[in-house]
Amino acid sequence: MATSPTDRPLGPTRLPPPADPPTGAAVTSERLLQAAHELLHERGGGAVSVSDLCTRAGANVAMVKYCFGSKDGLYDALVERVVGSFQADLAQLDELALPPRATMERHVGGIARNFLRFPYLSSLLNERLRRADPETVARLSEAFALPTRAWHARLLESGAAAGAFRQVDPTFFFFSVIGICEFLFSARSWLEQTFDERLSGDLVERFVAHTTRMVLDGIGPERPDVLGSR
Amino acid sequence: MATSPTDRPLGPTRLPPPADPPTGAAVTSERLLQAAHELLHERGGGAVSVSDLCTRAGANVAMVKYCFGSKDGLYDALVERVVGSFQADLAQLDELALPPRATMERHVGGIARNFLRFPYLSSLLNERLRRADPETVARLSEAFALPTRAWHARLLESGAAAGAFRQVDPTFFFFSVIGICEFLFSARSWLEQTFDERLSGDLVERFVAHTTRMVLDGIGPERPDVLGSR
Repeated sequence: MATSPTDRPLGPTRLPPPADPPTGAAVTSERLLQAAHELLHERGGGAVSVSDLCTRAGANVAMVKYCFGSKDGLYDALVERVVGSFQADLAQLDELALPPRATMERHVGGIARNFLRFPYLSSLLNERLRRADPETVARLSEAFALPTRAWHARLLESGAAAGAFRQVDPTFFFFSVIGICEFLFSARSWLEQTFDERLSGDLVERFVAHTTRMVLDGIGPERPDVLGSR
Repeated sequence: MATSPTDRPLGPTRLPPPADPPTGAAVTSERLLQAAHELLHERGGGAVSVSDLCTRAGANVAMVKYCFGSKDGLYDALVERVVGSFQADLAQLDELALPPRATMERHVGGIARNFLRFPYLSSLLNERLRRADPETVARLSEAFALPTRAWHARLLESGAAAGAFRQVDPTFFFFSVIGICEFLFSARSWLEQTFDERLSGDLVERFVAHTTRMVLDGIGPERPDVLGSR
Protein backbone atom coordinates (compact mmCIF):
# COMPACT_ATOMS: atom_id res chain seq x y z
CA MET A 1 0.00 0.00 0.00
CA ALA A 2 1.24 3.45 -0.87
CA THR A 3 -0.39 5.13 2.14
CA SER A 4 -0.70 4.09 5.76
CA PRO A 5 -4.26 3.65 7.07
CA THR A 6 -4.00 6.86 9.08
CA ASP A 7 -3.26 8.83 5.90
CA ARG A 8 -6.68 8.03 4.52
CA PRO A 9 -9.08 10.97 4.20
CA LEU A 10 -11.48 11.25 7.14
CA GLY A 11 -14.49 12.23 5.02
CA PRO A 12 -16.88 9.70 3.51
CA THR A 13 -15.76 7.88 0.39
CA ARG A 14 -18.13 6.85 -2.41
CA LEU A 15 -20.67 4.28 -1.38
CA PRO A 16 -19.83 0.87 -2.93
CA PRO A 17 -21.60 0.84 -6.35
CA PRO A 18 -24.57 -1.39 -7.17
CA ALA A 19 -24.03 -4.63 -9.11
CA ASP A 20 -25.49 -3.10 -12.30
CA PRO A 21 -25.29 0.55 -13.44
CA PRO A 22 -28.53 2.32 -12.44
CA THR A 23 -31.03 3.54 -15.04
CA GLY A 24 -34.34 5.45 -14.79
CA ALA A 25 -35.60 5.97 -11.23
CA ALA A 26 -32.65 3.88 -9.97
CA VAL A 27 -30.40 6.84 -10.77
CA THR A 28 -32.30 8.89 -8.18
CA SER A 29 -32.39 6.08 -5.62
CA GLU A 30 -28.62 5.75 -6.06
CA ARG A 31 -28.20 9.50 -5.42
CA LEU A 32 -30.37 9.18 -2.28
CA LEU A 33 -28.28 6.27 -0.98
CA GLN A 34 -25.07 8.24 -1.55
CA ALA A 35 -26.61 11.28 0.21
CA ALA A 36 -27.61 9.13 3.21
CA HIS A 37 -24.11 7.63 3.36
CA GLU A 38 -22.51 11.09 3.32
CA LEU A 39 -24.87 12.75 5.80
CA LEU A 40 -24.81 9.86 8.31
CA HIS A 41 -21.00 9.83 8.01
CA GLU A 42 -20.73 13.59 8.59
CA ARG A 43 -23.14 13.54 11.55
CA GLY A 44 -21.72 10.42 13.19
CA GLY A 45 -25.05 8.62 12.80
CA GLY A 46 -27.04 11.59 14.18
CA ALA A 47 -30.46 12.68 12.97
CA VAL A 48 -30.90 13.20 9.23
CA SER A 49 -34.28 14.37 7.88
CA VAL A 50 -35.90 13.38 4.59
CA SER A 51 -35.54 17.04 3.60
CA ASP A 52 -31.76 16.92 4.30
CA LEU A 53 -31.45 13.75 2.22
CA CYS A 54 -33.33 15.17 -0.76
CA THR A 55 -31.47 18.48 -0.68
CA ARG A 56 -28.12 16.67 -0.71
CA ALA A 57 -29.28 14.29 -3.43
CA GLY A 58 -30.85 17.06 -5.53
CA ALA A 59 -34.08 15.06 -5.53
CA ASN A 60 -37.74 15.90 -4.98
CA VAL A 61 -38.88 15.04 -1.42
CA ALA A 62 -41.46 12.62 -2.86
CA MET A 63 -38.65 10.41 -4.20
CA VAL A 64 -37.76 8.81 -0.82
CA LYS A 65 -41.27 7.44 -0.59
CA TYR A 66 -41.35 6.55 -4.30
CA CYS A 67 -37.99 4.71 -4.30
CA PHE A 68 -37.88 3.19 -0.79
CA GLY A 69 -41.34 3.53 0.78
CA SER A 70 -39.91 5.49 3.74
CA LYS A 71 -36.68 6.77 5.27
CA ASP A 72 -36.38 3.45 7.15
CA GLY A 73 -36.67 1.67 3.80
CA LEU A 74 -33.86 3.84 2.43
CA TYR A 75 -31.72 3.01 5.49
CA ASP A 76 -32.53 -0.70 5.05
CA ALA A 77 -31.24 -0.48 1.47
CA LEU A 78 -28.14 1.43 2.63
CA VAL A 79 -27.26 -1.21 5.25
CA GLU A 80 -27.86 -3.97 2.70
CA ARG A 81 -25.59 -2.23 0.16
CA VAL A 82 -22.81 -1.68 2.71
CA VAL A 83 -22.76 -5.18 4.23
CA GLY A 84 -23.24 -6.70 0.76
CA SER A 85 -20.07 -4.92 -0.41
CA PHE A 86 -18.04 -6.84 2.17
CA GLN A 87 -18.40 -9.98 0.02
CA ALA A 88 -16.12 -8.32 -2.55
CA ASP A 89 -13.47 -7.95 0.20
CA LEU A 90 -13.73 -11.69 0.91
CA ALA A 91 -13.46 -12.56 -2.80
CA GLN A 92 -10.35 -10.36 -3.10
CA LEU A 93 -8.84 -12.07 -0.05
CA ASP A 94 -9.52 -15.47 -1.63
CA GLU A 95 -7.73 -14.39 -4.80
CA LEU A 96 -4.57 -13.67 -2.80
CA ALA A 97 -4.50 -17.36 -1.79
CA LEU A 98 -2.62 -16.59 1.44
CA PRO A 99 -2.17 -19.20 4.21
CA PRO A 100 -5.19 -19.49 6.54
CA ARG A 101 -3.70 -17.50 9.41
CA ALA A 102 -2.68 -14.62 7.15
CA THR A 103 -6.10 -14.67 5.50
CA MET A 104 -7.84 -14.56 8.89
CA GLU A 105 -5.57 -11.78 10.11
CA ARG A 106 -6.49 -9.56 7.15
CA HIS A 107 -10.16 -10.45 7.51
CA VAL A 108 -10.34 -9.44 11.19
CA GLY A 109 -8.57 -6.16 10.49
CA GLY A 110 -10.95 -5.57 7.60
CA ILE A 111 -14.02 -5.95 9.83
CA ALA A 112 -12.78 -3.38 12.34
CA ARG A 113 -11.72 -0.94 9.60
CA ASN A 114 -15.11 -1.29 7.89
CA PHE A 115 -16.89 -0.17 11.07
CA LEU A 116 -14.68 2.93 11.00
CA ARG A 117 -15.25 3.43 7.25
CA PHE A 118 -19.04 3.28 7.75
CA PRO A 119 -19.38 4.88 11.20
CA TYR A 120 -23.18 4.64 11.10
CA LEU A 121 -23.14 0.91 10.36
CA SER A 122 -23.13 -0.58 13.87
CA SER A 123 -26.06 1.60 14.92
CA LEU A 124 -28.24 1.01 11.82
CA LEU A 125 -27.44 -2.71 11.74
CA ASN A 126 -28.18 -3.24 15.44
CA GLU A 127 -31.45 -1.37 15.09
CA ARG A 128 -32.53 -3.57 12.16
CA LEU A 129 -31.56 -6.77 13.96
CA ARG A 130 -33.44 -5.61 17.07
CA ARG A 131 -36.55 -4.73 15.07
CA ALA A 132 -36.35 -8.29 13.67
CA ASP A 133 -38.67 -7.60 10.73
CA PRO A 134 -38.52 -10.96 8.89
CA GLU A 135 -38.13 -9.44 5.40
CA THR A 136 -35.30 -7.07 6.42
CA VAL A 137 -33.52 -9.82 8.36
CA ALA A 138 -33.82 -12.15 5.35
CA ARG A 139 -32.33 -9.55 2.99
CA LEU A 140 -29.41 -8.90 5.37
CA SER A 141 -28.96 -12.66 5.74
CA GLU A 142 -28.68 -13.17 1.97
CA ALA A 143 -26.43 -10.15 1.51
CA PHE A 144 -24.15 -10.79 4.48
CA ALA A 145 -24.79 -13.32 7.25
CA LEU A 146 -25.14 -16.49 5.17
CA PRO A 147 -22.23 -15.94 2.74
CA THR A 148 -19.97 -14.65 5.54
CA ARG A 149 -20.62 -17.62 7.82
CA ALA A 150 -20.04 -19.94 4.84
CA TRP A 151 -16.73 -18.17 4.13
CA HIS A 152 -15.75 -18.51 7.81
CA ALA A 153 -16.62 -22.22 7.72
CA ARG A 154 -14.39 -22.81 4.67
CA LEU A 155 -11.48 -20.84 6.12
CA LEU A 156 -11.76 -22.49 9.55
CA GLU A 157 -11.83 -25.91 7.89
CA SER A 158 -8.83 -25.30 5.65
CA GLY A 159 -6.96 -23.80 8.63
CA ALA A 160 -7.75 -26.82 10.79
CA ALA A 161 -6.62 -29.17 7.98
CA ALA A 162 -3.33 -27.23 7.77
CA GLY A 163 -2.84 -27.39 11.56
CA ALA A 164 -3.15 -23.60 11.82
CA PHE A 165 -6.45 -23.57 13.77
CA ARG A 166 -8.20 -25.87 16.21
CA GLN A 167 -11.76 -27.02 15.50
CA VAL A 168 -14.07 -24.02 15.87
CA ASP A 169 -17.86 -23.79 15.49
CA PRO A 170 -18.40 -21.50 12.45
CA THR A 171 -21.74 -20.12 13.67
CA PHE A 172 -20.33 -19.10 17.05
CA PHE A 173 -17.20 -17.83 15.31
CA PHE A 174 -19.31 -15.60 13.05
CA PHE A 175 -20.88 -13.86 16.07
CA SER A 176 -17.61 -13.73 18.04
CA VAL A 177 -15.45 -12.20 15.35
CA ILE A 178 -17.99 -9.52 14.43
CA GLY A 179 -18.85 -8.81 18.07
CA ILE A 180 -15.22 -8.45 19.15
CA CYS A 181 -14.81 -5.73 16.50
CA GLU A 182 -18.27 -4.18 16.67
CA PHE A 183 -18.71 -3.25 20.33
CA LEU A 184 -15.90 -0.66 20.28
CA PHE A 185 -18.03 1.24 17.76
CA SER A 186 -21.50 0.72 19.27
CA ALA A 187 -20.06 1.64 22.72
CA ARG A 188 -18.17 4.62 21.30
CA SER A 189 -19.78 6.79 24.04
CA TRP A 190 -17.81 4.91 26.69
CA LEU A 191 -14.62 5.02 24.63
CA GLU A 192 -14.81 8.77 24.11
CA GLN A 193 -16.78 10.12 27.08
CA THR A 194 -15.62 7.69 29.78
CA PHE A 195 -12.15 6.58 28.76
CA ASP A 196 -11.24 9.88 27.08
CA GLU A 197 -10.01 8.33 23.82
CA ARG A 198 -10.78 9.40 20.23
CA LEU A 199 -12.12 6.87 17.71
CA SER A 200 -9.43 7.83 15.17
CA GLY A 201 -7.72 5.82 12.44
CA ASP A 202 -4.68 5.50 14.74
CA LEU A 203 -6.72 4.09 17.61
CA VAL A 204 -8.47 1.64 15.28
CA GLU A 205 -5.10 0.40 13.98
CA ARG A 206 -4.00 -0.30 17.59
CA PHE A 207 -7.35 -1.99 18.19
CA VAL A 208 -6.85 -4.08 15.02
CA ALA A 209 -3.46 -5.28 16.32
CA HIS A 210 -5.07 -6.20 19.68
CA THR A 211 -8.07 -7.90 18.09
CA THR A 212 -6.33 -9.88 15.35
CA ARG A 213 -3.94 -11.29 17.93
CA MET A 214 -6.77 -12.22 20.32
CA VAL A 215 -8.71 -13.95 17.54
CA LEU A 216 -5.72 -15.73 15.97
CA ASP A 217 -4.38 -16.97 19.30
CA GLY A 218 -7.96 -17.69 20.38
CA ILE A 219 -8.47 -20.18 17.56
CA GLY A 220 -4.85 -21.36 17.32
CA PRO A 221 -3.95 -25.07 17.34
CA GLU A 222 -4.06 -27.09 20.54
CA ARG A 223 -1.27 -26.44 23.00
CA PRO A 224 -0.47 -27.96 26.37
CA ASP A 225 -2.11 -26.11 29.24
CA VAL A 226 0.75 -23.94 30.41
CA LEU A 227 -0.20 -23.59 34.06
CA GLY A 228 -2.61 -26.46 34.59
CA SER A 229 -4.91 -23.98 36.29
CA ARG A 230 -8.05 -24.31 34.17
CA MET B 1 -23.99 -26.16 42.16
CA ALA B 2 -27.03 -28.32 42.76
CA THR B 3 -28.63 -27.56 39.40
CA SER B 4 -27.14 -27.35 35.92
CA PRO B 5 -27.55 -23.99 34.17
CA THR B 6 -30.19 -25.45 31.84
CA ASP B 7 -32.32 -26.43 34.84
CA ARG B 8 -32.79 -22.80 35.78
CA PRO B 9 -36.30 -21.44 35.39
CA LEU B 10 -36.82 -19.60 32.10
CA GLY B 11 -39.00 -16.84 33.57
CA PRO B 12 -37.57 -13.61 34.98
CA THR B 13 -36.02 -13.72 38.42
CA ARG B 14 -36.21 -10.83 40.89
CA LEU B 15 -34.41 -7.74 39.78
CA PRO B 16 -31.20 -7.26 41.80
CA PRO B 17 -32.23 -5.19 44.88
CA PRO B 18 -31.16 -1.59 45.48
CA ALA B 19 -28.27 -0.84 47.84
CA ASP B 20 -30.66 0.41 50.57
CA PRO B 21 -34.21 -0.83 51.31
CA PRO B 22 -36.68 1.55 49.62
CA THR B 23 -39.00 3.80 51.63
CA GLY B 24 -41.74 6.28 50.63
CA ALA B 25 -42.05 6.89 46.87
CA ALA B 26 -39.01 4.65 46.34
CA VAL B 27 -41.25 1.66 47.15
CA THR B 28 -43.31 2.49 44.06
CA SER B 29 -40.30 3.19 41.86
CA GLU B 30 -38.93 -0.20 42.94
CA ARG B 31 -42.22 -1.88 41.94
CA LEU B 32 -42.08 -0.09 38.56
CA LEU B 33 -38.49 -1.28 37.95
CA GLN B 34 -39.48 -4.85 38.80
CA ALA B 35 -42.51 -4.59 36.47
CA ALA B 36 -40.32 -3.30 33.61
CA HIS B 37 -37.84 -6.13 34.21
CA GLU B 38 -40.62 -8.75 34.10
CA LEU B 39 -42.48 -7.34 31.09
CA LEU B 40 -39.34 -6.76 28.98
CA HIS B 41 -38.23 -10.29 29.88
CA GLU B 42 -41.58 -11.80 28.92
CA ARG B 43 -41.79 -9.86 25.64
CA GLY B 44 -38.17 -10.39 24.60
CA GLY B 45 -37.53 -6.64 24.68
CA GLY B 46 -40.71 -5.89 22.66
CA ALA B 47 -42.97 -2.89 23.18
CA VAL B 48 -44.18 -2.22 26.74
CA SER B 49 -46.51 0.75 27.37
CA VAL B 50 -46.62 2.97 30.46
CA SER B 51 -50.08 1.57 31.08
CA ASP B 52 -48.71 -2.02 30.99
CA LEU B 53 -45.98 -1.06 33.44
CA CYS B 54 -48.34 0.59 35.91
CA THR B 55 -50.89 -2.23 35.75
CA ARG B 56 -48.18 -4.80 36.51
CA ALA B 57 -46.72 -2.63 39.28
CA GLY B 58 -50.13 -1.79 40.76
CA ALA B 59 -49.22 1.88 40.48
CA ASN B 60 -51.03 5.00 39.26
CA VAL B 61 -50.00 5.95 35.69
CA ALA B 62 -48.73 9.31 36.96
CA MET B 63 -46.04 7.52 38.98
CA VAL B 64 -43.74 6.81 36.01
CA LYS B 65 -43.44 10.53 35.36
CA TYR B 66 -43.22 11.32 39.10
CA CYS B 67 -40.49 8.73 39.84
CA PHE B 68 -38.47 8.71 36.60
CA GLY B 69 -39.58 11.69 34.46
CA SER B 70 -40.51 9.39 31.56
CA LYS B 71 -40.50 5.76 30.42
CA ASP B 72 -37.01 6.32 29.01
CA GLY B 73 -35.97 7.54 32.47
CA LEU B 74 -37.37 4.36 34.00
CA TYR B 75 -35.45 2.27 31.43
CA ASP B 76 -32.27 4.26 32.15
CA ALA B 77 -32.66 3.39 35.85
CA LEU B 78 -33.33 -0.27 34.97
CA VAL B 79 -30.17 -0.56 32.84
CA GLU B 80 -28.17 1.19 35.57
CA ARG B 81 -29.54 -1.22 38.22
CA VAL B 82 -28.79 -4.29 36.09
CA VAL B 83 -25.24 -3.39 35.02
CA GLY B 84 -24.52 -2.06 38.52
CA SER B 85 -25.43 -5.47 39.97
CA PHE B 86 -22.59 -7.05 37.99
CA GLN B 87 -20.09 -5.45 40.39
CA ALA B 88 -21.36 -7.84 43.08
CA ASP B 89 -20.47 -10.76 40.75
CA LEU B 90 -16.92 -9.41 40.46
CA ALA B 91 -16.63 -8.96 44.23
CA GLN B 92 -17.80 -12.55 44.77
CA LEU B 93 -15.25 -13.77 42.23
CA ASP B 94 -12.51 -11.86 44.04
CA GLU B 95 -13.50 -13.53 47.32
CA LEU B 96 -12.91 -16.97 45.79
CA ALA B 97 -9.26 -15.96 45.23
CA LEU B 98 -8.90 -18.35 42.26
CA PRO B 99 -5.87 -18.26 39.93
CA PRO B 100 -6.13 -15.59 37.20
CA ARG B 101 -7.09 -17.97 34.37
CA ALA B 102 -9.86 -19.59 36.42
CA THR B 103 -11.11 -16.16 37.50
CA MET B 104 -11.18 -14.95 33.90
CA GLU B 105 -12.93 -18.13 32.74
CA ARG B 106 -15.76 -17.61 35.24
CA HIS B 107 -15.96 -13.93 34.42
CA VAL B 108 -16.38 -14.50 30.65
CA GLY B 109 -19.06 -17.14 31.25
CA GLY B 110 -20.79 -14.75 33.64
CA ILE B 111 -20.99 -12.00 31.01
CA ALA B 112 -22.64 -14.28 28.45
CA ARG B 113 -25.05 -15.74 31.04
CA ASN B 114 -26.03 -12.25 32.21
CA PHE B 115 -27.09 -11.30 28.67
CA LEU B 116 -29.36 -14.36 28.74
CA ARG B 117 -30.59 -13.55 32.25
CA PHE B 118 -31.51 -10.01 31.20
CA PRO B 119 -32.56 -10.60 27.57
CA TYR B 120 -33.50 -6.94 27.09
CA LEU B 121 -30.10 -5.69 28.25
CA SER B 122 -28.13 -5.62 24.98
CA SER B 123 -30.90 -3.68 23.24
CA LEU B 124 -31.49 -1.09 26.01
CA LEU B 125 -27.77 -0.64 26.63
CA ASN B 126 -26.90 -0.21 22.95
CA GLU B 127 -29.70 2.31 22.56
CA ARG B 128 -28.44 4.36 25.51
CA LEU B 129 -24.84 4.28 24.27
CA ARG B 130 -26.01 5.33 20.79
CA ARG B 131 -28.10 8.20 22.17
CA ALA B 132 -24.90 9.30 23.97
CA ASP B 133 -26.71 11.61 26.41
CA PRO B 134 -23.79 12.74 28.62
CA GLU B 135 -25.66 12.28 31.93
CA THR B 136 -26.88 8.75 31.10
CA VAL B 137 -23.46 7.73 29.79
CA ALA B 138 -21.84 9.12 32.96
CA ARG B 139 -24.20 7.15 35.22
CA LEU B 140 -23.55 3.92 33.27
CA SER B 141 -19.83 4.66 33.42
CA GLU B 142 -19.88 5.01 37.21
CA ALA B 143 -22.10 1.96 37.68
CA PHE B 144 -20.34 -0.30 35.21
CA ALA B 145 -17.71 0.77 32.66
CA LEU B 146 -15.17 2.38 35.02
CA PRO B 147 -15.20 -0.28 37.80
CA THR B 148 -15.28 -3.14 35.26
CA ARG B 149 -12.33 -1.84 33.25
CA ALA B 150 -10.44 -1.29 36.55
CA TRP B 151 -11.22 -4.89 37.57
CA HIS B 152 -10.02 -6.12 34.15
CA ALA B 153 -6.81 -4.10 34.52
CA ARG B 154 -6.07 -5.66 37.94
CA LEU B 155 -6.82 -9.21 36.76
CA LEU B 156 -4.81 -8.81 33.54
CA GLU B 157 -1.88 -7.44 35.53
CA SER B 158 -1.91 -10.22 38.14
CA GLY B 159 -2.28 -12.80 35.36
CA ALA B 160 0.67 -11.33 33.46
CA ALA B 161 2.75 -11.32 36.64
CA ALA B 162 1.88 -15.00 37.17
CA GLY B 163 2.80 -15.87 33.57
CA ALA B 164 -0.84 -16.81 32.80
CA PHE B 165 -1.52 -13.94 30.37
CA ARG B 166 0.51 -11.85 27.97
CA GLN B 167 0.42 -8.04 28.22
CA VAL B 168 -3.06 -6.88 27.14
CA ASP B 169 -4.47 -3.34 26.90
CA PRO B 170 -7.26 -3.22 29.52
CA THR B 171 -9.38 -0.65 27.64
CA PHE B 172 -9.37 -2.69 24.43
CA PHE B 173 -9.91 -5.85 26.48
CA PHE B 174 -13.01 -4.33 28.12
CA PHE B 175 -14.63 -3.75 24.71
CA SER B 176 -13.45 -7.10 23.29
CA VAL B 177 -14.68 -9.29 26.09
CA ILE B 178 -18.09 -7.66 26.28
CA GLY B 179 -18.45 -7.49 22.49
CA ILE B 180 -17.52 -11.13 21.96
CA CYS B 181 -20.38 -12.09 24.32
CA GLU B 182 -22.86 -9.36 23.44
CA PHE B 183 -23.27 -9.67 19.67
CA LEU B 184 -24.86 -13.13 19.85
CA PHE B 185 -27.71 -11.44 21.76
CA SER B 186 -28.01 -8.21 19.79
CA ALA B 187 -27.90 -10.24 16.53
CA ARG B 188 -30.36 -12.80 17.88
CA SER B 189 -32.45 -12.30 14.70
CA TRP B 190 -29.67 -13.87 12.63
CA LEU B 191 -29.14 -16.66 15.14
CA GLU B 192 -32.80 -17.61 15.19
CA GLN B 193 -34.19 -16.55 11.80
CA THR B 194 -31.12 -17.16 9.62
CA PHE B 195 -29.21 -19.97 11.30
CA ASP B 196 -32.29 -21.68 12.72
CA GLU B 197 -30.98 -21.95 16.30
CA ARG B 198 -32.80 -21.17 19.57
CA LEU B 199 -31.24 -18.80 22.12
CA SER B 200 -31.72 -21.34 24.92
CA GLY B 201 -29.77 -22.01 28.09
CA ASP B 202 -28.18 -25.02 26.36
CA LEU B 203 -27.00 -22.99 23.40
CA VAL B 204 -25.61 -20.29 25.68
CA GLU B 205 -23.62 -22.90 27.62
CA ARG B 206 -22.07 -24.13 24.35
CA PHE B 207 -21.39 -20.51 23.42
CA VAL B 208 -19.77 -19.95 26.84
CA ALA B 209 -17.42 -22.91 26.23
CA HIS B 210 -16.50 -21.48 22.80
CA THR B 211 -16.05 -17.93 24.08
CA THR B 212 -14.10 -18.62 27.27
CA ARG B 213 -11.64 -20.70 25.28
CA MET B 214 -11.25 -18.03 22.59
CA VAL B 215 -10.65 -15.33 25.21
CA LEU B 216 -8.32 -17.39 27.43
CA ASP B 217 -6.22 -18.64 24.52
CA GLY B 218 -6.46 -15.17 22.98
CA ILE B 219 -4.71 -13.55 25.94
CA GLY B 220 -2.57 -16.56 26.88
CA PRO B 221 1.20 -16.25 27.45
CA GLU B 222 3.58 -15.88 24.53
CA ARG B 223 4.20 -18.99 22.51
CA PRO B 224 6.39 -19.66 19.51
CA ASP B 225 4.60 -19.07 16.23
CA VAL B 226 3.60 -22.58 15.30
CA LEU B 227 3.59 -22.23 11.54
CA GLY B 228 5.66 -19.12 10.97
CA SER B 229 2.91 -17.99 8.62
CA ARG B 230 1.93 -14.67 10.15
